[in-house]
Amino acid sequence: MNKRLLDISWEDYSALSLSEKLPYLCQRNGLPFHTLFAQQFDGQLIDRLANLANAIRGISKTRTGTLFLRDLVCHKRAMLYFSQPSSRTFLSFLSACQLLGVQIGEVRDTATSSEFKGESKEDSVRTFSSYFDLIIMRSREKGLAERMAWVFSNAVRQVPIINAGSGKDQHPTQALLDIYTLLRSFDRSGGLRDRTVSFVGDLARGRTVRSLSRLLTNYPNISQIFVAPSQLQIGQDILDDLKEKGVSYSLTDDLRLAVSKSDAVYMTRIQDEWDNKQGESQEIDTSRFVFGTEELKLLKPTGVILHPLPRRNEIDVAVDADPRAMYWRQMRNGMWIRAALIAETFGCGKRIFDYYSHNL
Amino acid sequence: MNKRLLDISWEDYSALSLSEKLPYLCQRNGLPFHTLFAQQFDGQLIDRLANLANAIRGISKTRTGTLFLRDLVCHKRAMLYFSQPSSRTFLSFLSACQLLGVQIGEVRDTATSSEFKGESKEDSVRTFSSYFDLIIMRSREKGLAERMAWVFSNAVRQVPIINAGSGKDQHPTQALLDIYTLLRSFDRSGGLRDRTVSFVGDLARGRTVRSLSRLLTNYPNISQIFVAPSQLQIGQDILDDLKEKGVSYSLTDDLRLAVSKSDAVYMTRIQDEWDNKQGESQEIDTSRFVFGTEELKLLKPTGVILHPLPRRNEIDVAVDADPRAMYWRQMRNGMWIRAALIAETFGCGKRIFDYYSHNL
Amino acid sequence: MNKRLLDISWEDYSALSLSEKLPYLCQRNGLPFHTLFAQQFDGQLIDRLANLANAIRGISKTRTGTLFLRDLVCHKRAMLYFSQPSSRTFLSFLSACQLLGVQIGEVRDTATSSEFKGESKEDSVRTFSSYFDLIIMRSREKGLAERMAWVFSNAVRQVPIINAGSGKDQHPTQALLDIYTLLRSFDRSGGLRDRTVSFVGDLARGRTVRSLSRLLTNYPNISQIFVAPSQLQIGQDILDDLKEKGVSYSLTDDLRLAVSKSDAVYMTRIQDEWDNKQGESQEIDTSRFVFGTEELKLLKPTGVILHPLPRRNEIDVAVDADPRAMYWRQMRNGMWIRAALIAETFGCGKRIFDYYSHNL
Repeated sequence: MNKRLLDISWEDYSALSLSEKLPYLCQRNGLPFHTLFAQQFDGQLIDRLANLANAIRGISKTRTGTLFLRDLVCHKRAMLYFSQPSSRTFLSFLSACQLLGVQIGEVRDTATSSEFKGESKEDSVRTFSSYFDLIIMRSREKGLAERMAWVFSNAVRQVPIINAGSGKDQHPTQALLDIYTLLRSFDRSGGLRDRTVSFVGDLARGRTVRSLSRLLTNYPNISQIFVAPSQLQIGQDILDDLKEKGVSYSLTDDLRLAVSKSDAVYMTRIQDEWDNKQGESQEIDTSRFVFGTEELKLLKPTGVILHPLPRRNEIDVAVDADPRAMYWRQMRNGMWIRAALIAETFGCGKRIFDYYSHNL
Repeated sequence: MNKRLLDISWEDYSALSLSEKLPYLCQRNGLPFHTLFAQQFDGQLIDRLANLANAIRGISKTRTGTLFLRDLVCHKRAMLYFSQPSSRTFLSFLSACQLLGVQIGEVRDTATSSEFKGESKEDSVRTFSSYFDLIIMRSREKGLAERMAWVFSNAVRQVPIINAGSGKDQHPTQALLDIYTLLRSFDRSGGLRDRTVSFVGDLARGRTVRSLSRLLTNYPNISQIFVAPSQLQIGQDILDDLKEKGVSYSLTDDLRLAVSKSDAVYMTRIQDEWDNKQGESQEIDTSRFVFGTEELKLLKPTGVILHPLPRRNEIDVAVDADPRAMYWRQMRNGMWIRAALIAETFGCGKRIFDYYSHNL
Repeated sequence: MNKRLLDISWEDYSALSLSEKLPYLCQRNGLPFHTLFAQQFDGQLIDRLANLANAIRGISKTRTGTLFLRDLVCHKRAMLYFSQPSSRTFLSFLSACQLLGVQIGEVRDTATSSEFKGESKEDSVRTFSSYFDLIIMRSREKGLAERMAWVFSNAVRQVPIINAGSGKDQHPTQALLDIYTLLRSFDRSGGLRDRTVSFVGDLARGRTVRSLSRLLTNYPNISQIFVAPSQLQIGQDILDDLKEKGVSYSLTDDLRLAVSKSDAVYMTRIQDEWDNKQGESQEIDTSRFVFGTEELKLLKPTGVILHPLPRRNEIDVAVDADPRAMYWRQMRNGMWIRAALIAETFGCGKRIFDYYSHNL
């Protein structure tokens, strides 16, 4: 277990750079203890988790396998603390827990709950953590999961935290499921290398795009195209990062041109819940950033379309039936890869790999 | 598995009559795959489910039996999608799932949840379905469960749907538990034949009455009496149906007269949540449609009183202690018959019958 | 099973004194069937439950032990009916149930739920009880749990009730966890006898203080100090009780003086949710009733600080790291002692003691 987080003050820890923080979040074997940032996932760890997700998926195809999985972590219990509501992410984590037999308790919508008046969030989460072996938390508040990880390190019981989304900032398991979906999509056609990936929509505020763009730099020769109206283009910090790593990229507002060049198109919706003033997003013309049947004709036969969902109108429902529409499978991938992450957090990865290699 | 729903467009399917739709909803063995309409239950299927419910009830009396049941479907997970809240129906289905070991996830009160803004219901339900093996859904929206069944048929994963109430229209498992309660009530006195059943209260808007009235036509020589103020009387479509099938019926506003003739009295509350304008129901004098201790005196010794609950004042609490008051047992019957339906949906009915015949 | 509650009318039962009521709530073996009042716990029962909680805690340290516990009551299901929200108490009971394998269903926030309009609470709870084997209920309404226990006694199925807090009045399992924490705190230093316990804060409205004060009279030579502003001092009924039992006590508004004399300091927050008019509590100067680092210096090395949580500012967070701060462990104690109570309610205490004595 990560010992050092106990020995550092919050002030000193906060002042560290991201890469300096990472060693504080790992188990002795290098696997994550706390999962807080997408940057914790390097190529090697992603491969391990993707393989484990594949194994879990394969094992669960039979009743016997399902029962093996459900027995694995059935002595542990997890709290789903979702102060920012998200049925989608909630059910995905719930399902991942249930696959492994982890029992769950939940706290939702604390913001509106009168019972919490006057109590600090640190106290709330710490109290709840006293009943559980894992905290999966989602919050509108930037950095809350990280702060809690530090608070826990000073408690008698060490409880791992998985960040299920915090503010506009981090949503590491979403990034993980996106990259897992790309890995699977290209598994039989040469793998995730020498590809062009387009990101489309609200790139300024979509944390999934930012995380995925960064993770893709772990893979060789992936070009990135950012397709957005100028007001919603990707942040300069991301572009600086890509440049520094020598990754090829371009910016455009021509969706069809981008689609015709792409192996993967990652669509996103306008994140107007982050508007600074009401209706701000509606003043932007987003009609040219909709993927319809015309765009489908331009996409390579081996191309894929992803979307973190929920969608509004940025993908025409007529596209759903096309085999290249991966977004429903992408959802389900989230369940498998989260199960893999939880299994590793509880140190059960090896047992799953062993079962898989002996039985399948 | 029902293959043909895949091959029909929504437009063509919608245009079908109810009886033409039914084959699209069945498993190969004739049991329901999707359970959407009360009309899917014919006499033979009802008997099978009632016998299975009896077996489950009997088996669950011992710890060993309970553990047998809990092992049956413990490799499956169900989503309870209740966008129209109902703790009663929710807990009944939850309990039925738990009896069979099915793990559950839930989504409630989506109407007020900001997270769903801009997403279509089809997308929401389809996304959630990607994590689960069964969807049990309740909605204010007429026909949503049916629409979702069609949407799912076009997805890679076929997921069965059980309609737990949709709009004013259908609530098939309520009808099933009502008829199961009648079957049990008359089990030792000649069965469900040659009986008179009275329906009392808001017959215009109570979907349970409409469904039960229809299901009763599967049984020989059941007379029906509809007892209501004229504004809340049963719909003409139901009466036309009864007439066509040669079922004897009558309409009245004299509760005591009806009670004195009845083997079963099915009480209902005023459904003022469906009022077109506020307070509309309060203008109707419903005081004569209350079952009290005086009515109890008029009821046959073998008679029974049912109520789908919740009640307001239409049954005096003084009636509760009478052994002919079946409404609490009726609730519990709902749990058993829903467990039977879920077991058959997952193909486990035979294993339960086998266990029952070998052990009890 | 308690047979007599069936034979007494609500009017006659209500007129009984508390001590006359107690025999109606017990199992044949003297253990609680319904747990409604803190006064049901005498010294002998508390010792039994505390020992059982210790056993459960010890057994759960291994995966094998955890699986033994989870198998114990896995054929039973409990309803958590929390019409007064409390995530803290809810999760504690949930965890206790999960430890023993009890499956749960939940009803929360019924007050705001439109579905309950017009239905009596008795009907709601009775209906829900029809699906479950144990009801754990919390309500703003004084005496509701007791009323329900009587209603259930007249139903076909006897379902035990555990009161998880009713109105300003009773919260028996909180009192139980508080005393369990004191027992553990002094376990290695002579036990719970010849001690001074201070209660600090809102003593007028804090039900936990009232219950704990009463329970402490079961232990020899425990002096009690009540530290509060005059408007929030402890009720005269409690003081009369102590006097009658010959327990030494004093009242003061000098926290530091009290701390320096105390073996245990029980801090509480201002319960302004019970204010008769808005802002009433804010007019009281509570700044002198805050436990900070200065107070810590005055506390004996063997002293302990308790708090039922949530806290606001009445304990400085700087105190948390001190080993004498017991309030986080106190939370976790709640889970263990509730598991013990549920185990005894279902008659599994002996099996747990047997396992413990053979394996640990």
